[in-house]
Amino acid sequence: MINTLFLPELRELLDSGDAHALREVCTALHPARTAEFVEGLSPGEAWSVLKHADMPLRVEIFSYFDHDHQVAIFESQDRHEVAELIAEMSPDDRVDLLQEVSPEVVQQLLELVPASERQNIERLQAFEEGTAGAVMTTDIARLSESLKVRDALAELGRQAEQLETIYYIYVVDGSGRLKGVVSARQLVSAMGRPQVTLGDLMDTDILMANVHEDQESVADKVARYDLLAIPVVDDDGRLVGIVTHDDVIDVVREEATEDAHRIAAVDPLEDSYMRTSLFTLSWKRGIWLSILFVAALLTAFALRHYEKNLASWEWLVWFIPLVISSGGNSGSQTATLIITAMATGDVELRNWLQVVLRELAMGLLLGGFLGLIGFLAAAVLRWPNISEALVVPFTLLLVVICGTLCGSVLPLLFKRLGWDPALMSNPFVAGIIDILGIVIYMNVAMALLDITSPRGP
Amino acid sequence: MINTLFLPELRELLDSGDAHALREVCTALHPARTAEFVEGLSPGEAWSVLKHADMPLRVEIFSYFDHDHQVAIFESQDRHEVAELIAEMSPDDRVDLLQEVSPEVVQQLLELVPASERQNIERLQAFEEGTAGAVMTTDIARLSESLKVRDALAELGRQAEQLETIYYIYVVDGSGRLKGVVSARQLVSAMGRPQVTLGDLMDTDILMANVHEDQESVADKVARYDLLAIPVVDDDGRLVGIVTHDDVIDVVREEATEDAHRIAAVDPLEDSYMRTSLFTLSWKRGIWLSILFVAALLTAFALRHYEKNLASWEWLVWFIPLVISSGGNSGSQTATLIITAMATGDVELRNWLQVVLRELAMGLLLGGFLGLIGFLAAAVLRWPNISEALVVPFTLLLVVICGTLCGSVLPLLFKRLGWDPALMSNPFVAGIIDILGIVIYMNVAMALLDITSPRGP
Repeated sequence: MINTLFLPELRELLDSGDAHALREVCTALHPARTAEFVEGLSPGEAWSVLKHADMPLRVEIFSYFDHDHQVAIFESQDRHEVAELIAEMSPDDRVDLLQEVSPEVVQQLLELVPASERQNIERLQAFEEGTAGAVMTTDIARLSESLKVRDALAELGRQAEQLETIYYIYVVDGSGRLKGVVSARQLVSAMGRPQVTLGDLMDTDILMANVHEDQESVADKVARYDLLAIPVVDDDGRLVGIVTHDDVIDVVREEATEDAHRIAAVDPLEDSYMRTSLFTLSWKRGIWLSILFVAALLTAFALRHYEKNLASWEWLVWFIPLVISSGGNSGSQTATLIITAMATGDVELRNWLQVVLRELAMGLLLGGFLGLIGFLAAAVLRWPNISEALVVPFTLLLVVICGTLCGSVLPLLFKRLGWDPALMSNPFVAGIIDILGIVIYMNVAMALLDITSPRGP
Repeated sequence: MINTLFLPELRELLDSGDAHALREVCTALHPARTAEFVEGLSPGEAWSVLKHADMPLRVEIFSYFDHDHQVAIFESQDRHEVAELIAEMSPDDRVDLLQEVSPEVVQQLLELVPASERQNIERLQAFEEGTAGAVMTTDIARLSESLKVRDALAELGRQAEQLETIYYIYVVDGSGRLKGVVSARQLVSAMGRPQVTLGDLMDTDILMANVHEDQESVADKVARYDLLAIPVVDDDGRLVGIVTHDDVIDVVREEATEDAHRIAAVDPLEDSYMRTSLFTLSWKRGIWLSILFVAALLTAFALRHYEKNLASWEWLVWFIPLVISSGGNSGSQTATLIITAMATGDVELRNWLQVVLRELAMGLLLGGFLGLIGFLAAAVLRWPNISEALVVPFTLLLVVICGTLCGSVLPLLFKRLGWDPALMSNPFVAGIIDILGIVIYMNVAMALLDITSPRGP
């Protein structure tokens, strides 16, 4: 979000070098709003404004800039000044950002960052995209269990500015293993009892995530248990970081978008739509389109197989698209409902029979209703041969039932096989219905009309 | 999530009335895990276990039960005991829950709840579903600006158990208007300076939401500014509640599911898939299926219009489903990409030209590629009349371009008109492509083949 309202005034202040006023600009508003006003400037100008803010505030305003603006500043501004900012940024944000900066600039910048921060960056960069390790941050309050409440609060006060969150305090043993968690709420409640130690207060039944755990499963835990943050441990149980509530919202959004893309037969994009290159985009779409295309090719062979039937009853051709699209639409409705219900935990594998029966009933209801409209339309188009028109409603009823059944069985089957139900369910359903629809249509027609049977294989 | 592992042991403890052991069960684990173990019991048994936990813990374990189990307990257990629990529950959760309990039970329960809590429940119930007022909670720390840091901490310590979140302290004036916010982080950092008051510390540029604001817009603010909670004010600026990070995650999930349903032409369900009645479900699906069906009916009329052309070139019929489904698939890919990109703010209205040009390029690339495969298939099926087969690739190219253009223009247009882009975009795109696909196909065929023009209207 960019607000261009005060750009002329900001440029004037920069030209006149009014340091006092520029400091005012940085401090008067919420950092997120300051960012909106400053972001419309060129990277160089925006950076000049930011330099009037103290480091913690500078980092915060910068963190609200758009990703592209952040990258532009990293690549164009004084390397030493940028490196100072990097040293103060939150560990997870800077790793995300550095991924997009050109490698030679990253190398130059990392040389100027203090060694401890550089190691931290390199360690986080090593985690695979989509794991807890890749989204976690490493700025956490690690305290010893013998610490008294009052001292713990004082220690927190000293560290508060550097920490991503002070809402949980993690108690670790000598080798860094996580032993317990004390919430800031517990600490504040215990202020009246100064002799109490963290060891007395801490919860030892800790909800935690493994560094290699999938980010979706981490987000589920945080959402289910209403946590502000979840500790992340390595395979030896040593505390290595935390995933915080704001990262979880991003993960939830990201996963929902990925599911939506998979449902529409697009391989999920790693980057945003606007930043993905045409080449990547055409690959991620083309691969699924081609698979669907090959499936749809089968319909051409099927129709050629029924050539003679169609020649004797030409009007059957008119309803081919209607039959196919009705089956496809009802199938994609079902598949989407089941996929989203499984994603939110509302439908589980053990409900399979109930789901399939529900969808059978839906298919009867919806197919029956569409068949009725279809019969009226066919009767009008084939007037006065109304008995012929009966082919249409019977076909529609059967095709819609096929659609709802495929749409429910396939996602459940994929889940059972350990695949992502969103993956290919809708495309598969559409492909199956295309070909089944034609076979059903032709066989219903052969049964009801005086029609020659298709030529042999 | 239900864990049935210890059900026999739990039942034994209940039979023997071992109060000490049951207390252990309630306190030893994280409340969420206790809930998993207890939830497999009958409502009466689960309630008997819960009664061994102190009230704050009892409320917390209960809050992790499945909605259906909570409702069953409310409806079957002792009204007085349930009312005690309700009085202690978080204001937003109990209002959500009471919506599902039968009205006569709700009335009996509310009569037993203290008057102040009852008024609170009735006030929250009055807000429209989907607004900030309906998701907010009202347990907040409201303090005066003259309070000193040390006193504020002590006051927080006293209130901590009752509050939904202690991570922001809201400073209000005499008439309840919101004047500023102090984060727990600021408070803890300032502990070394006991003379500082909340008025000195507070931020006065406050991000807030109006009670009537749409929950999606509230969630966007919290996500964008990485907040733990956002204050909610009424039209006079009086602080009435907060929306917390955990509610925001629920809202984000809910909205993503709604979008997915709309994309698949299902009117969003108010309840979960399994709890929605077949009647409601068939209505919410049938209405869109019928609209799509009527659109698809147009294809039948179009094909009748081209009856003579099809009679002279029968093989054209074979490729009708292929043409339509290729256009529909590429169109739904585009529409989904644009809709999700607009939902996350990645594409905005001002990017329209860029988006349309990208999709034009995508259409050329994808249509060209599919046309190539289509040509090979048509050449095989029509061997040796290869020149005839050229109708297929030219049609595919044009139809896929139509698909990507419709898929991008429609969601942008809907957004421009102030409608939800997810609403009907995909169904509309599919319907338009069905009919356009046939018109394009027939006209390409007429241009390339020696074919009679269609009979006049």
